[in-house]
Amino acid sequence: MASESPAILPLLIFARVSGLVVALLVVMWALNFQTSFIPLHNPQNLIYSILHPLLMVIGFILISGEAILVHRWLPGSRSLKKSVHLCLQGVALACGIFGIWTKFYGENGIVANFYSLHSWMGLICVSLFGAQWLLGFLSFWHRGEMRSTRLRILPWHVFLGLYTYGLAIATAETGLLEKLTFLQTRGTVLKHSPESIIVNCLGLGLALLSGVIILAAVSPRHQTLPAKLMYSNTKRLSLDE
Amino acid sequence: MASESPAILPLLIFARVSGLVVALLVVMWALNFQTSFIPLHNPQNLIYSILHPLLMVIGFILISGEAILVHRWLPGSRSLKKSVHLCLQGVALACGIFGIWTKFYGENGIVANFYSLHSWMGLICVSLFGAQWLLGFLSFWHRGEMRSTRLRILPWHVFLGLYTYGLAIATAETGLLEKLTFLQTRGTVLKHSPESIIVNCLGLGLALLSGVIILAAVSPRHQTLPAKLMYSNTKRLSLDE
Repeated sequence: MASESPAILPLLIFARVSGLVVALLVVMWALNFQTSFIPLHNPQNLIYSILHPLLMVIGFILISGEAILVHRWLPGSRSLKKSVHLCLQGVALACGIFGIWTKFYGENGIVANFYSLHSWMGLICVSLFGAQWLLGFLSFWHRGEMRSTRLRILPWHVFLGLYTYGLAIATAETGLLEKLTFLQTRGTVLKHSPESIIVNCLGLGLALLSGVIILAAVSPRHQTLPAKLMYSNTKRLSLDE
Repeated sequence: MASESPAILPLLIFARVSGLVVALLVVMWALNFQTSFIPLHNPQNLIYSILHPLLMVIGFILISGEAILVHRWLPGSRSLKKSVHLCLQGVALACGIFGIWTKFYGENGIVANFYSLHSWMGLICVSLFGAQWLLGFLSFWHRGEMRSTRLRILPWHVFLGLYTYGLAIATAETGLLEKLTFLQTRGTVLKHSPESIIVNCLGLGLALLSGVIILAAVSPRHQTLPAKLMYSNTKRLSLDE
């Protein structure tokens, strides 16, 4: 995306609007259709069951997306940007861990829940996210002496971060579908019903959001002349060979 | 990923091994657990139900991934690479359309199937893919006069292509989970059973495959001195400001 730099401001606005729509949809689902969240074996644990999608979507995914965007709009020093990025990702990670805990706590422990593709993907995703955050945290406190190392791992940090973000979105999609298929097969929720439509729109909103966030993250900020020249040279090379 | 160029050969090998594992898992699932695929209302349409995951995973996703990789390994002219890329993506698109058709044909038409998040995501994904392919096909026949236009849209083509590929993977994950949740809720398949483990491993294999294919696609091929210098300059800029 180096040659045709999209204006970053409209992208940022679009990302925030998509995020707001996603947040509204998940809150609307959790508050208006509480009966869908009553756990089969422990009905008194309703609150944990409702907290799970709220924490994973708003806490983990939306805050993490905002942390990715910090580098694209926050004015100030590099250190400030990195601090805010680190803090926001820390909040997202805490929400993710707490969100997983609510599921395991609310419904009969780890073994009873750790069978689905959603749970497998979720644990891998949060583990990758945690490892990324820990590496970021450690490198943040080793400023001078590790500068060359940090420069070397930066592209990997960016790639793995965006991959983990995409994996989180895919995991959320599987979670939405698992919940809805479960309810629909039990006959609690009709296939063509307001709840089904809200959950499907939430899924599409998340898919759209991921595209906008990743586009904003990879699109170039500086459109300097050397960068332009350099890019068109390499592009021509790869096209011509 | 410009500075730390991973060696492309190991990446390509890893991508092919992941793809092979994914193909084996989906074939193993389809052949060994045929009873899981018997349609509720039209049991005689078993073959369409089995063809759906095979066409979507092997035909749509694996061939499409191979088409993405063509630019990274195929020797020869730019025109040859583009032709092979276009042909492979055409085969993938045909498999995708046929795969969707088997589902709608095999189970009571479009209305009865077009309710789930999986079906919504799948249709959006194949439509995006079709639009991309059509644009690629048209630009392929307008060689000289549209060169500047093609150069301008190339980064968008790459971004949208990789996004569509990621969306296809997410859609496949939802499909696997929908099928398994449906079977588990009906009690046909146990939560902890060989079939559940095979499908979950297939899901994880697809997630891994997407990471390797996208990494291979975005990692730089040429590590020329100017590119190195250019990269470290822009990197320093973005880190220092």
